[in-house]
Amino acid sequence: MRDDSFHVFDTTLRDGAQREGINLRVSDKLAIAKLLDDFGVAFIEGGWPGANPKDTEFFRRASQELDLEHALLTAFGATRRAGVRAADDPQVAALRDSGASVVTLVAKSDDRHVERALRTTLDENLAMIADTVSHLREHGQRVFVDCEHFFDGYRHHPEYALSVVRTAAEAGADVVVLCDTNGGMLPADITRVVTEVREATGVRLGIHAQDDTGCAVANTLAAVDAGATHVQCTANGYGERVGNADLFSVVGALALKRGREILPEGCLGEMTRVSTAIAEIVNLAPDTHRPYVGVSAFAHKAGLHASAIKVDPDLYQHTDPELVGNRMRMLVSDMAGRASVELKARELGLDLGDDRALSGRVVERIKGLELSGYSFEAADASLELLLREELGESVRYFETESWRVLTERRPTAGSSPLAGEDESLSEATVKLRVKGERVIATAEGNGPVNALDRALRSSLEHAFTALGGLELTDYKVRILEGASGTDAVTRILVTFSDGGEEWTTVGVGPNVVDASWVALEQAITYGLLRQGYPRD
Amino acid sequence: MRDDSFHVFDTTLRDGAQREGINLRVSDKLAIAKLLDDFGVAFIEGGWPGANPKDTEFFRRASQELDLEHALLTAFGATRRAGVRAADDPQVAALRDSGASVVTLVAKSDDRHVERALRTTLDENLAMIADTVSHLREHGQRVFVDCEHFFDGYRHHPEYALSVVRTAAEAGADVVVLCDTNGGMLPADITRVVTEVREATGVRLGIHAQDDTGCAVANTLAAVDAGATHVQCTANGYGERVGNADLFSVVGALALKRGREILPEGCLGEMTRVSTAIAEIVNLAPDTHRPYVGVSAFAHKAGLHASAIKVDPDLYQHTDPELVGNRMRMLVSDMAGRASVELKARELGLDLGDDRALSGRVVERIKGLELSGYSFEAADASLELLLREELGESVRYFETESWRVLTERRPTAGSSPLAGEDESLSEATVKLRVKGERVIATAEGNGPVNALDRALRSSLEHAFTALGGLELTDYKVRILEGASGTDAVTRILVTFSDGGEEWTTVGVGPNVVDASWVALEQAITYGLLRQGYPRD
Repeated sequence: MRDDSFHVFDTTLRDGAQREGINLRVSDKLAIAKLLDDFGVAFIEGGWPGANPKDTEFFRRASQELDLEHALLTAFGATRRAGVRAADDPQVAALRDSGASVVTLVAKSDDRHVERALRTTLDENLAMIADTVSHLREHGQRVFVDCEHFFDGYRHHPEYALSVVRTAAEAGADVVVLCDTNGGMLPADITRVVTEVREATGVRLGIHAQDDTGCAVANTLAAVDAGATHVQCTANGYGERVGNADLFSVVGALALKRGREILPEGCLGEMTRVSTAIAEIVNLAPDTHRPYVGVSAFAHKAGLHASAIKVDPDLYQHTDPELVGNRMRMLVSDMAGRASVELKARELGLDLGDDRALSGRVVERIKGLELSGYSFEAADASLELLLREELGESVRYFETESWRVLTERRPTAGSSPLAGEDESLSEATVKLRVKGERVIATAEGNGPVNALDRALRSSLEHAFTALGGLELTDYKVRILEGASGTDAVTRILVTFSDGGEEWTTVGVGPNVVDASWVALEQAITYGLLRQGYPRD
Repeated sequence: MRDDSFHVFDTTLRDGAQREGINLRVSDKLAIAKLLDDFGVAFIEGGWPGANPKDTEFFRRASQELDLEHALLTAFGATRRAGVRAADDPQVAALRDSGASVVTLVAKSDDRHVERALRTTLDENLAMIADTVSHLREHGQRVFVDCEHFFDGYRHHPEYALSVVRTAAEAGADVVVLCDTNGGMLPADITRVVTEVREATGVRLGIHAQDDTGCAVANTLAAVDAGATHVQCTANGYGERVGNADLFSVVGALALKRGREILPEGCLGEMTRVSTAIAEIVNLAPDTHRPYVGVSAFAHKAGLHASAIKVDPDLYQHTDPELVGNRMRMLVSDMAGRASVELKARELGLDLGDDRALSGRVVERIKGLELSGYSFEAADASLELLLREELGESVRYFETESWRVLTERRPTAGSSPLAGEDESLSEATVKLRVKGERVIATAEGNGPVNALDRALRSSLEHAFTALGGLELTDYKVRILEGASGTDAVTRILVTFSDGGEEWTTVGVGPNVVDASWVALEQAITYGLLRQGYPRD
């Protein structure tokens, strides 16, 4: 049983998903939950079952597919509607039946919101809280209560806000979370209010801070200083409007500046990887300037200090970047070091031996590719193919002579551009050499990459019958910074599966179709290698 | 004479320019200085004359070209070298002769940095500070002293750190600025140290906070709470590594949360404009999620709350966005109700009148489109075209008969898939009806969308000469849930600019090229509408 005295509670999947531009699929949510578990958070708020079919589906699949080592999944929902019994409210039933052993209930704590938004009486609101908490407790669930707009409520009508805290705790809530819902607070005021509430009620308190003043991390820490023992955060600070308190900055401060052991051993070093991987999944460029995890977070302009930093990095860095899985960078110098390439090769089961020239050459090649936009962090299959090439074990099952794709559309006369009812079609032709023979194949698809994928498979399936078992399962497009608009460089990540394992390859180029081809070609090659076909 | 009791000191042009990726020309610096002056800061640190030819040039041109209404320009530099007289140090001479009436001197205050990085004695460091300050004071300049790595120094050897503060003040420095140079501090510790230093020395103190813990804004406010009366910040928090304390968040908190009149009247409302304009000049995309100034900072997901927000926005917003020159936005999402569509139409300057059937029809259409993958949150231009259609004001400058794009590649024999050295090319042909005439145009591009954009423009530019001024500035691809891999539905966001404003349109479909076309067609149509061409 994990120590319950301090809760790192993550709400990326619920509140973080409110960020403008984030739109998560159920499979994305499952992947993020796994990453958050790797980071060792204690609770993962998965969504609002019952209110949102996607979230209901998430809880269903999570109970079958997710095997969490550290975290408990929690469901989010509201107190019962006014005037009904909790047992009769379908929304409460969805929480009760979600399979989550912990439920976070949002409750109104600002009297103005009760009267003007909820349109009920102050007493009924208290009854709604008490009933819902008791009902879920009776069914064996642990309950946390989020007091929405608490700080505004406390300023306006402190006695009512306090009665909400007391009501929730008396009904059986384990933690009452004070929420700065509109994010307008500053740390000094948080410290004062949390202290007052704790002294007035004796209840175990949590904090949920939005970042509208740019102080969400500091506000969270201020609440902890004042005695809160439950922090609600989101990965990379994603959230509505400006965002939420950033999980990584809050944990970084508590672990590294306050020396608190709030994560399981070994998890802190996962921080940078988890942050970056989550950014990839939500399809936002990782924020290069994020505290602790950004690629610029420990980047030093070389120059006067360079040698001093090398000798004595502690003089210039607030913490050791390796503690959070990041690293120091000298801005004129490289991304990949020899040591890390050797480590990676070993991880992939390849032996670079003691050949320092070889690993140096690999580093140079990776650096060059990264400069042109490649990134191998999420594309192990591409990295393995590259390492094999440098080891003289190139894998090549076919030679591409040429390919072309035609995409065309004939709109229905007079249709609205937004109607989306017109037919468009892509047709691809690939010309390859396979086992000494020239093969030409043409296929249609609903887009250029789909057509290319089909034409490529169709040209290879005679020679490699196992190809039929490979499936393209994910395709990601990222426009890289630099040149603007459609002139920009595109990075494509393609994921294939053979029914069991998945592998990802990367392609880069100014032409989105061409970059896709580069990734596709590698993904098929890697798949054939996995199937055991002998190399060339 | 401006009230000197509190200093808003900006160092965007010196410390902010250290951000990875920022590289300012002298003309950029002049333009930014003008904007900072519009915002009403008291001091603008322009750079380090003498150390950097570009900065020397900046001070020369500034004295001739800049006409600042509110701000004083300050020069940055270091204390004299060890073992020479201040009068004989060319670097000090450059400060003295810069024409700036105020100089900020950086001084070491951590004994380890004195000994290991500066390689001089603790006493000589104090003499360097005293001499340099006195010398500049004798020449009529006002002097502020930045104590580098102060908080680490104070932790390690408090008496020495305090002697640096006293020495600077006794030599004539007006303000001694405590710098958290490596950004590792948390607010509670800042409060304690600033209080102790103020009580021990009685010197006027300032604060300079880096953002490595994500607490730079809170640290700055903590120092002010503890009696500091000079805050050093940068626009949008630009700066080395993670960045500096964000000028706008610090000013926003002091002005709106603490009620302090630290800016000249009328300047606070310039915040959003100045922030965005500076981002444009330094060529970084404005951070949509910045406190106060981001386009998402006051964006609300519509739906259940829409009617409540309409009646009572103060219930949901921590401050009135108009105070900082920003505005509330309703995100029209699949939770859209009639109320939010009406609000949105009003925001776009369209009147849906009292026609409840009309707004109901718009809601239904938006819901249908969102179900198929559209999202209008970031695509106001598409939404406006849709609303105009429903109002019977369809905008149509051309009819598309058909288009096609061919993309092809002929790899160099034997090249590695990762080499990226092969040529690929796209060629698009579009057939349109424009003003009754049939037009056919073909263009090449480095990708299918680029080729389509060029072919479309080339077919329209005879009829619409203003088209040349429109530019595609951003292109975003998002793969949506549904079938997996390249079968999935793609959402494209395209942003155009006419040099002044930007607008974004959205296209959706299983074919990435087709979805891009849908967005492109609308973006060009909207651009022509903005240029004032009469609707069909």
